[in-house]
Amino acid sequence: MKKKIVIKDSDRLVADLSKAYRAVAKQTTIPILTGFHLHFTGESLTITGSDTDNTIRITEENNCSSSQSCAVVVPARIFLDIVRKLPAGEIQLKMGENEISIAAGKSTFELKTMKADEYPSFSLDDTGVCVELQAADLANGLRLEYACSVLSMRPTLQGIHIFSKEKGVTFVATDSHRLSSWTVQLDQELKLPKMILPASAAVEMIKLIEDAADKVTIHCTENSMRLTHQNVTYISRLISGTYPETSRVVPTNFSTTFVANRDELVKVMERVSIVSKEGKANMCRLQVIPSAMPSLLISASQEGMGKVQEEVFISDLEGDILEMKFSTKYLLEALRHMKAKEVMFQASGANAPIIIRPTGNEPGFALILPVRSA
Amino acid sequence: MKKKIVIKDSDRLVADLSKAYRAVAKQTTIPILTGFHLHFTGESLTITGSDTDNTIRITEENNCSSSQSCAVVVPARIFLDIVRKLPAGEIQLKMGENEISIAAGKSTFELKTMKADEYPSFSLDDTGVCVELQAADLANGLRLEYACSVLSMRPTLQGIHIFSKEKGVTFVATDSHRLSSWTVQLDQELKLPKMILPASAAVEMIKLIEDAADKVTIHCTENSMRLTHQNVTYISRLISGTYPETSRVVPTNFSTTFVANRDELVKVMERVSIVSKEGKANMCRLQVIPSAMPSLLISASQEGMGKVQEEVFISDLEGDILEMKFSTKYLLEALRHMKAKEVMFQASGANAPIIIRPTGNEPGFALILPVRSA
Repeated sequence: MKKKIVIKDSDRLVADLSKAYRAVAKQTTIPILTGFHLHFTGESLTITGSDTDNTIRITEENNCSSSQSCAVVVPARIFLDIVRKLPAGEIQLKMGENEISIAAGKSTFELKTMKADEYPSFSLDDTGVCVELQAADLANGLRLEYACSVLSMRPTLQGIHIFSKEKGVTFVATDSHRLSSWTVQLDQELKLPKMILPASAAVEMIKLIEDAADKVTIHCTENSMRLTHQNVTYISRLISGTYPETSRVVPTNFSTTFVANRDELVKVMERVSIVSKEGKANMCRLQVIPSAMPSLLISASQEGMGKVQEEVFISDLEGDILEMKFSTKYLLEALRHMKAKEVMFQASGANAPIIIRPTGNEPGFALILPVRSA
Repeated sequence: MKKKIVIKDSDRLVADLSKAYRAVAKQTTIPILTGFHLHFTGESLTITGSDTDNTIRITEENNCSSSQSCAVVVPARIFLDIVRKLPAGEIQLKMGENEISIAAGKSTFELKTMKADEYPSFSLDDTGVCVELQAADLANGLRLEYACSVLSMRPTLQGIHIFSKEKGVTFVATDSHRLSSWTVQLDQELKLPKMILPASAAVEMIKLIEDAADKVTIHCTENSMRLTHQNVTYISRLISGTYPETSRVVPTNFSTTFVANRDELVKVMERVSIVSKEGKANMCRLQVIPSAMPSLLISASQEGMGKVQEEVFISDLEGDILEMKFSTKYLLEALRHMKAKEVMFQASGANAPIIIRPTGNEPGFALILPVRSA
């Protein structure tokens, strides 16, 4: 006998399925992972999508009514397409042995289904450490994914290193040419396991929480990080391995420091980038010009094409005259990640790394290695 | 000595360049075609972009001041990028022998330029016939590009056939499996040359005029069609050859006719398409069900995946019971192109073409060949 289920609001179902769809395997040799696992119990529906590395689980209460508990795996893309295109309102589901019928108004679909007991079980184990963070704080940490390596030679650098120290949770990312760090302060001390979260998972997590103004919970174990926000749970497998010790590479003594307006610099660097990105190294030159109104000259040139020169006023200049070359892309990404109105540059000569720090209370910095002069 | 030019409003320049950029050659063996031809005379600037098949020319008055007439070719993509990223407001240009400097605020760019006299001249010859049309009417005709062939075996079918007959200008497109026609009525009789406008040019022309509420002028010669709207001129080379005689294939006697709601049918066909597009033929079945409240059943199925059935009420049913198979894509595209609230279907058996006509005053129709039953 077929099991009947009524979905009350198709729009809510579409919203839930769209979120879970992010984790559904798009290319896989395991057909069942191309489906949504749907589990109905009374008025509760739990939707799971997974490619085994990433799993999204959403529990929606009071949007369905099923006379008895049941579970099924439906082809994800097509099921989502159907529900999205059905007229808004109620949907009737009827589950048979190997098929599901989906009806609304005078539309009736029938889809082949897969067996729910063949779907991998993703148990939410409760060992590990739990911590609550403001969604915006976590998102800022996860956004360091921009500095992760895209090369697979050193897999650990393809992730964000997350660890706790006293009352802070610190996020670090590096591709060995630059390094960015961000710390979130907590009310109390706690001991997280050291984790390396894949950059790709960070990108997906940001999408889930970027509009949230409330708190999220992260649950950390040796092998996985689990993010819970309202009725959505995202589980990511961690990258195994030991993250390099990065604190040693951050210099603490500087021969030149100055402060610049971040917004203005971003716009300037975007223009410089028009010229510099035409070259292989995407390189620009920074020159500090001391005077009563000190300024920073930024320039780039490409043979056969042209050149650009920009000037921005700087303040609080201390130390030596400076001339350095950098990747325009690295400078831009570091400046864009920060929120502060003003940023401090700390340098120690043309061949040492430069550090950019937001002024004010932003608890992070970006370190960038210069391009060495030939 | 360098020639100095002041651009008053960078935003207006960006808007003009963005339009002209559509015609600039993106992939070409002729480097000069990757540039904008800029021609300054006093307070007038004429911008030309072209890949030789398509040319866009824009004349902007009162947005520049140049002490003497001059012309130059600048690299289009980079010049547009620069102007777009400069702070809004005034821009100073200085033209040297082989380079141009572009300055605003404390930004200075210098770009290599190409010689204006090496740019092909696109003279606007004034032989041919001129006709004024409402922009919306022309856009509706050009939108028939959806029915053009995408195969290069028959080049003439890759364009829209445009010709005049008495007081009408008729647009016809076919890929030999379907045919769509649209006629714009004029106040007076006029004789246009028969033209075949490339579908790709039609797509670009639509973008230029789709928001216009006023009239446009088209200027037709043997080899080119020129569209003028406000200060923008678009010239497209025509496809040479003789367009097939299409009026013979349109049947005039029908064994079944009925009327359906177009909006509802579009939504239904979009849902049917979810299932039918998974198959190679993208095929659906239409069945007319006579009764006191006659209806149209539309269904599709894919082995191993599932099936869909939809029902819509129809009116004014006359003639025989009907069951036919069609490409879902063709039906959808024909219905979407029309604006009328209701459409009439005219059929004469399962293997003859069906005709869909908007009811009311819309002067067009779509003819679709059925998929023959095996």
